[in-house]
Amino acid sequence: MKMIEMMLQTHPRADTAQTAERAAVIDALAVCAQACGICADACLGDSLHLDALRPCIQASLDCADACGTTARLLNRPVGMWNAPLHVAQLHACAVACQLCADACDAWADEHSHCRICAEVCAHCKEQCELLLVELASAETQNSEEAAFSS
Amino acid sequence: MKMIEMMLQTHPRADTAQTAERAAVIDALAVCAQACGICADACLGDSLHLDALRPCIQASLDCADACGTTARLLNRPVGMWNAPLHVAQLHACAVACQLCADACDAWADEHSHCRICAEVCAHCKEQCELLLVELASAETQNSEEAAFSS
Amino acid sequence: MKMIEMMLQTHPRADTAQTAERAAVIDALAVCAQACGICADACLGDSLHLDALRPCIQASLDCADACGTTARLLNRPVGMWNAPLHVAQLHACAVACQLCADACDAWADEHSHCRICAEVCAHCKEQCELLLVELASAETQNSEEAAFSS
Amino acid sequence: MKMIEMMLQTHPRADTAQTAERAAVIDALAVCAQACGICADACLGDSLHLDALRPCIQASLDCADACGTTARLLNRPVGMWNAPLHVAQLHACAVACQLCADACDAWADEHSHCRICAEVCAHCKEQCELLLVELASAETQNSEEAAFSS
Repeated sequence: MKMIEMMLQTHPRADTAQTAERAAVIDALAVCAQACGICADACLGDSLHLDALRPCIQASLDCADACGTTARLLNRPVGMWNAPLHVAQLHACAVACQLCADACDAWADEHSHCRICAEVCAHCKEQCELLLVELASAETQNSEEAAFSS
Repeated sequence: MKMIEMMLQTHPRADTAQTAERAAVIDALAVCAQACGICADACLGDSLHLDALRPCIQASLDCADACGTTARLLNRPVGMWNAPLHVAQLHACAVACQLCADACDAWADEHSHCRICAEVCAHCKEQCELLLVELASAETQNSEEAAFSS
Repeated sequence: MKMIEMMLQTHPRADTAQTAERAAVIDALAVCAQACGICADACLGDSLHLDALRPCIQASLDCADACGTTARLLNRPVGMWNAPLHVAQLHACAVACQLCADACDAWADEHSHCRICAEVCAHCKEQCELLLVELASAETQNSEEAAFSS
Repeated sequence: MKMIEMMLQTHPRADTAQTAERAAVIDALAVCAQACGICADACLGDSLHLDALRPCIQASLDCADACGTTARLLNRPVGMWNAPLHVAQLHACAVACQLCADACDAWADEHSHCRICAEVCAHCKEQCELLLVELASAETQNSEEAAFSS
């Protein structure tokens, strides 16, 4: 989604120094939301193991919801005032991705869609955590600047 | 939404001892999602103060998204394995509700919809935090039981 | 959700003559989205009939999505320019409600949550169709006024 | 999103003859949902033309919602029983894309994000309509087969 990066670059309030990183997270979230949606339905289509697949289906539905909403929030570039929300939602999303990656990974040998979904979730979790680190360091920097200027 | 409570009572995996509390949270989230959606659009319709209303609009859109997804997750009753996700998402939602309550409260005198939305958000945040307390105490209890049984 | 009606009444662009009707549809949609989400998960928790319940689960997930989005669109009161979208989305939502009502009704004797969900979906479909009739009559009136004034 | 195609190919109920086409639509919808979300927020950040941009913001929010839900539905591959819902939702989504493409196109010279968003919406509408044609021809084929076999 090169398009996302291009759009963020022309957003009047986006920090252009970080558009590539930000676009990568939104891209990972959008892909993960679709992967989890497909995986949940594909698992529901496996009549042989349906009973055992229920935690996997639930984790995928949860993760699709968490990723979808996290992407929507990140589409509105973070400012200082809403940074705590972005941090909290990214954290929730990383938890959802980890739970779904674990649940799908257990079925990686049986289902190609579970194997792919586990990989997509692991990548998405990584992207969320990279952005969390970046937001934390931005906050520290802002606090220090505030301390100096006061 | 008495209906939500009735449905949770017949859910095979829901803890029937807590259906009233759980239903109250889902109800608050569903109402808050609609309130924030209406408030964002109503603010967008105020041509006189539009420039100053932008943080209020953004906070309302964020809060509508956070509440909508938190409700979706809570519709799938929490088990031990997904409790960390419910905790993290409820926390993110409480942050979103607080930000929106603050942003809308600043316009309570100008806009009835902002005044109502601020109240709805404050109530929803309260409900999220009540459930967080409950989940934390359930976790402590489970840890203690695990410690005793080991 | 008396609150929705109160908010719509203070919305600068909402047609105050229709706020009660509009609020009733948004309310029905928000309730139906939660009911379908709970029903899908409750069906997933029935290990005895899981295989046969799959169409019911899929219909509930679809209906939850359709209702949620239709509510979001209706939270932004319709004007002439976006009326065709509201009409098309309400129509899609009515189809989703009918499919889910049928799928859940088939399980009404087994599951209380399916019986309730079928009723909620039937009511929501009815509300969508009432609004569709109203939008169609508004369009006719506007066309006639345009014809007279031209 | 090559990943979406790979996952659909391993979905037990997906028609493997059409996975590339189906994946292309889901991809277009996921990209369009993000583009519209970013464009709405970027327009909200333009203090110079904010008043005139309101229809553009509203159309983008509507389109983001419609595309997001249509993708979610398509992630659950269509069968005969839910084909009418997919048809109706794809139609609603095509309407949303057209409205947003028109609204953003009017700002293409002022805002790069509006220009890109208009292109993304036009492409997404095209993809929805291609799938609608395909679903209509599948339905005709099924009706003819039913007529022959009866």
